[in-house]
Amino acid sequence: MKIGICAPSTPFTREDAQKVIALAARHYPQAELVFHEQCFVEQGHFAGSDAQRLEAFVGMANDPAFDAIWFVRGGYGACRIAEAAVKQLKAPAKTKAYLGYSDQGNLLAALYRAGIGWPAHGPMPTDIRREGGESAVLRALGWLVDGDVAALEPNMQKGRSYAAFNLMTLAMLAGTPLMPDLAGHVLMVEEVSEYLYAFDRAMFSVTTQLKARGIAGLMLGRVSDIPENDRPFGIDAEAIARHWCTKNGIAYLGRADIGHDSDNRIVPFGMIA
Amino acid sequence: MKIGICAPSTPFTREDAQKVIALAARHYPQAELVFHEQCFVEQGHFAGSDAQRLEAFVGMANDPAFDAIWFVRGGYGACRIAEAAVKQLKAPAKTKAYLGYSDQGNLLAALYRAGIGWPAHGPMPTDIRREGGESAVLRALGWLVDGDVAALEPNMQKGRSYAAFNLMTLAMLAGTPLMPDLAGHVLMVEEVSEYLYAFDRAMFSVTTQLKARGIAGLMLGRVSDIPENDRPFGIDAEAIARHWCTKNGIAYLGRADIGHDSDNRIVPFGMIA
Repeated sequence: MKIGICAPSTPFTREDAQKVIALAARHYPQAELVFHEQCFVEQGHFAGSDAQRLEAFVGMANDPAFDAIWFVRGGYGACRIAEAAVKQLKAPAKTKAYLGYSDQGNLLAALYRAGIGWPAHGPMPTDIRREGGESAVLRALGWLVDGDVAALEPNMQKGRSYAAFNLMTLAMLAGTPLMPDLAGHVLMVEEVSEYLYAFDRAMFSVTTQLKARGIAGLMLGRVSDIPENDRPFGIDAEAIARHWCTKNGIAYLGRADIGHDSDNRIVPFGMIA
Repeated sequence: MKIGICAPSTPFTREDAQKVIALAARHYPQAELVFHEQCFVEQGHFAGSDAQRLEAFVGMANDPAFDAIWFVRGGYGACRIAEAAVKQLKAPAKTKAYLGYSDQGNLLAALYRAGIGWPAHGPMPTDIRREGGESAVLRALGWLVDGDVAALEPNMQKGRSYAAFNLMTLAMLAGTPLMPDLAGHVLMVEEVSEYLYAFDRAMFSVTTQLKARGIAGLMLGRVSDIPENDRPFGIDAEAIARHWCTKNGIAYLGRADIGHDSDNRIVPFGMIA
């Protein structure tokens, strides 16, 4: 079992990579974790130029030696390369899992739209930095290495289809060629570090665009680290989600166990078998 | 000349309203400014409930006594009422100018899409709070009352069509039923208080969605009050605009004299006669 790790957005550190490799070696000795050198390149905001990030991802995805691709962290930058990257994927890319969240929703979306491999929303190596982050990293490895069902978001039901996104990431990619058809899917969204008015605005954008597109419903993950505004918004994140679901004829199906935290559970895109 | 002022987003203060009325009385005594009471209502983040804000705008727009509608300020909230509001507009609404910017881009977009009146991107009463803000307020009044061409964005050319938006507002409304057809238009965008990575992301979203939609080009207004991130982005706002225009086959046409500041010039939507 060989897992390729690359950085389509922002760079990682060698120190944290060593921590993840050591943790994996203790719990999943059968897994070989390969951090692409590109994970440690710094160019302004990004882990290398668009070309470098694209080449690292495409190279690993097309390499039959790797069984899965694990995105090292979010940040920002995957939307700059996702469309071009997916177009360059070949047969070996089609039998891999792809795991990440936050900004990597851009690649998960593009992969799912193209029907390539098994994209999944879940923890990344960078979660090692969080309090309790080892559990998140081990949850991801449990799913990647053993297909551990305990790693999965617990509200998912067999025979139903799912997708999960950071809300702001989804709001920005909706309407672009990255956006997959989510008809029949339960959509889970989570958010972090956004004012409630910005959360409301992104909910407006996403639910209005998904109106009459046949999604099976929306579930709300955690909305965390909300900055305090100069005036209180007046209603909380769940009331906002209900408001926009009602307004756009989308079933609101309750809370989902996903978020920018160590408890973030895994949501494979598509139908749960 | 009677100008109706309402607040589709966040509330105003009576004190600032008095300042604007006094300034207008000195320079444009022929203009009567009517601040709707709804401008001063506070409900959480908003200037009243969605129903209150909708009713105030629709009531003034449909009232033949008013010659123009001036949005009092931005903030957030217009996207919650814009689609429903425009559906309720009747004949008297079709012969008015509508002036505002920032969050009011939602209403300008919906009005322009519906072909109702003359929406224009430009200063609002709230600009009285800025340093040098009186000049912005007087510029708006000059255009509303006298059709003063010196108030207009100076790069606009006769026979060309224009539209102007706050970039984030446009990114969120693109793909929704508020979005007008901008084929043949020069699109001007400006931004305030966003990290450069968020500006880049919104540029990705907007230019990718407008790719192959036949816009005549993009001009960049001011990008101001950019927060400092934990790492420098690497390129500036204009380089970001050029990047996304090139990537999506959109002509980059240089800088526009619009922004969240006192110098903000007026951009009437549609063809300049």
